Amino acid sequence: MKTISRKTIDRALLYIRALENLLKKKRDKISSSELADITGSSDVQIRKDISFFGKVGTPRIGYETKKLKDILENFILQNNIVHIALFGVGNLGKAILKYPGFQTDKIKLVAAFDKAKNKISKEVNGIKIYPVEQSWEVIKKVHAEIGIIAVPPQSSQEVANLMVKAGLKGIINFAPSCISVPENIFVKNIDFSIEILSIFSHTQVQK
Amino acid sequence: MKTISRKTIDRALLYIRALENLLKKKRDKISSSELADITGSSDVQIRKDISFFGKVGTPRIGYETKKLKDILENFILQNNIVHIALFGVGNLGKAILKYPGFQTDKIKLVAAFDKAKNKISKEVNGIKIYPVEQSWEVIKKVHAEIGIIAVPPQSSQEVANLMVKAGLKGIINFAPSCISVPENIFVKNIDFSIEILSIFSHTQVQK
Repeated sequence: MKTISRKTIDRALLYIRALENLLKKKRDKISSSELADITGSSDVQIRKDISFFGKVGTPRIGYETKKLKDILENFILQNNIVHIALFGVGNLGKAILKYPGFQTDKIKLVAAFDKAKNKISKEVNGIKIYPVEQSWEVIKKVHAEIGIIAVPPQSSQEVANLMVKAGLKGIINFAPSCISVPENIFVKNIDFSIEILSIFSHTQVQK
Repeated sequence: MKTISRKTIDRALLYIRALENLLKKKRDKISSSELADITGSSDVQIRKDISFFGKVGTPRIGYETKKLKDILENFILQNNIVHIALFGVGNLGKAILKYPGFQTDKIKLVAAFDKAKNKISKEVNGIKIYPVEQSWEVIKKVHAEIGIIAVPPQSSQEVANLMVKAGLKGIINFAPSCISVPENIFVKNIDFSIEILSIFSHTQVQK
């Protein structure tokens, strides 16, 4: 993956998002010019990118949406399986443990951690809940690379520190609070307020 | 809002996302050139946009992060308060009801719906849970404009139909399934699998 530019990867992610939305609308075929329109890219760029990712598409018919999405996902994952560790098994944590997108053959939530004694050693959706003190050993054992923070805001920094110590390279932070981590750790803060602003702006324009 | 272009609004949303991340890193000042770097915009464009949104910033010192974010949010909301209705009070729904970002003075979750009899008339975080059959009347009464789907995938279309009937103009769909709605309803599908792919790609590049 080292020789591929960040921009190419970001375009692949953009295409995957667009294709996922098309699949949700049950669109099983897509032309390069339509994909260009949706993503704000050019037809030429799309064709160039996709031929770089793999051999797909039939002239005049376009691409199979599902197949193209799979090819782009494989391009990002490069035959890796992503293992995820979850911190915090409250309401949000339980919902995350049951999320089908985290139990596929490419993305797997493999361990959960909590500090409440009554949750330890239980399983949700087949995933075991460990005491947070064991996070270092368990994360090494299950080869997790990405962590999800679903604890209350006051505990998020403490959990982030444990994640960094255990060698996780990327973090999704659902806690509505700041975490500070070394520069080489990638953090994605999930903020639904901004999604609401975005949706609101779309509903206004369409009036 | 009618005279402002979609592109300007989208740039405002992009700036808000960047400013929110800066706030989480406790950065209370930002220059236009830094904001340009982060968002991939140009310094000139940023200055032009921001002077259009309102009077802010001091030469050589830059913008106050929090103040600039507030101004941009006000620009999007135009003095409106966004009212949200939630469908589905399972684990995810309960987490959403407790989400602080949906209990601010500009964005308010005002009603929740479920079909389980044992949840009806209860309150979570001060928000009442109504039977789903009353969604039309309640949504009219509380003036909700945006709906959140947090029901199991097999019920998501049925819930989407109720939302459209009740006059909601925008939908956030957390259910991992497709919903089909009229063209004038804006739908945002939340897909965490793509976030994982994105984070994974960043961790790979940094190796």
